[in-house]
Amino acid sequence: MRIDILTLFPDMFQGPFSESIIKRAQEKGCVEIHCHNIRDYSTNKHKKVDDYAFSGGAGMVMSIEPIAILIEKLKAQRDYDQIIYTTPDGQTLNQGISNQLSLSGNLMILCGHYKGVDQRVRDHYITMELSIGDYVLTGGELAAAVITDSVVRLIPGVISDETSALTDSFQDGLLAPPVYTRPADYKGWKVPDILLSGDTKKVEQWKEQQAFERTRQRRPDLLK
Amino acid sequence: MRIDILTLFPDMFQGPFSESIIKRAQEKGCVEIHCHNIRDYSTNKHKKVDDYAFSGGAGMVMSIEPIAILIEKLKAQRDYDQIIYTTPDGQTLNQGISNQLSLSGNLMILCGHYKGVDQRVRDHYITMELSIGDYVLTGGELAAAVITDSVVRLIPGVISDETSALTDSFQDGLLAPPVYTRPADYKGWKVPDILLSGDTKKVEQWKEQQAFERTRQRRPDLLK
Repeated sequence: MRIDILTLFPDMFQGPFSESIIKRAQEKGCVEIHCHNIRDYSTNKHKKVDDYAFSGGAGMVMSIEPIAILIEKLKAQRDYDQIIYTTPDGQTLNQGISNQLSLSGNLMILCGHYKGVDQRVRDHYITMELSIGDYVLTGGELAAAVITDSVVRLIPGVISDETSALTDSFQDGLLAPPVYTRPADYKGWKVPDILLSGDTKKVEQWKEQQAFERTRQRRPDLLK
Repeated sequence: MRIDILTLFPDMFQGPFSESIIKRAQEKGCVEIHCHNIRDYSTNKHKKVDDYAFSGGAGMVMSIEPIAILIEKLKAQRDYDQIIYTTPDGQTLNQGISNQLSLSGNLMILCGHYKGVDQRVRDHYITMELSIGDYVLTGGELAAAVITDSVVRLIPGVISDETSALTDSFQDGLLAPPVYTRPADYKGWKVPDILLSGDTKKVEQWKEQQAFERTRQRRPDLLK
């Protein structure tokens, strides 16, 4: 998979993409991530990339021209499965969307910033608008990092033990059951006896029951 | 405000916290963000911080000891309004929670990784469990960055033009209306005439109607 990220702040991706699983996914060749600085495509002599909104109001708007030039350039080089725009008013990301995006060959993600992009970019270039949740961020960069992370970890070969991803929360519609590791007793706080019993069948039943119970208490909406 | 982040991957926060608004918020003294490496608190000679889950199953579990030592140390230094754990089965973050957290003096955020932390950490130390959405990430670091970003931008003085934050999506229960900037005509794609009319009252009516219409179409749940 190839992911092109279009942003005014490419340095924001330094940490998230150079650590842990996403770093290894790139090293293994499972994914190529390219961050493009929209400012490099400004034709303005001051490299301006934003301007005041028509109609006034607080906050700047990202101009159409540099974004249009960059998107046209990338589209001329390859076909994209989706051209995603990160925005709080987009469709809310969920595991189903991540699963579906993980089957893509090429994805483009445009990061909104300030008050967002000129609406004409959305009307003419964007094929999918995604929000990562009902809260506002300083920009769409973290949203793009979240989308990338949730998608890349689903590409076959990225997580070494594939059953690990399959037992995550949401994959089967239930939250994950509680987990415990050694020591069995930490300052008097003990792990449940059943987990030390060695009775595999009972342990599996306990885990299923805990997953169901946790889902019922915390997220009854997932059980509908 | 002070935010302490407890993580196995402190370098993941390099980009997100050293750019744009969050960087300036720290420079202005509006927020202090401290990232602590849990590994530094391992008493194991190999600096081990995780172990196999009791009961088996794929994936590692973060051990209680180094986390408990670090949390106890920080709690001895100051009182925390919340000790947050980032986990897909937590309460889903929304703008209301971010608004509330932005009034805090001290926050601690523990980043889950692998299969999560030993349940006893959650039972005995954590006061709030947050998910940023219904999808799984390679770790809780991006979730902690998202929570921090959404909270810090609400601290008075962080965003220069405060009306800008107040007109964002979600703050008034509506999505934001579309925005446009110059040029008024880009290759035949024009901005709506009304925005060029100079009739302030009509423009405000148009924006309200667009915000309402967009919310009705995309997120009718917000209107309930």
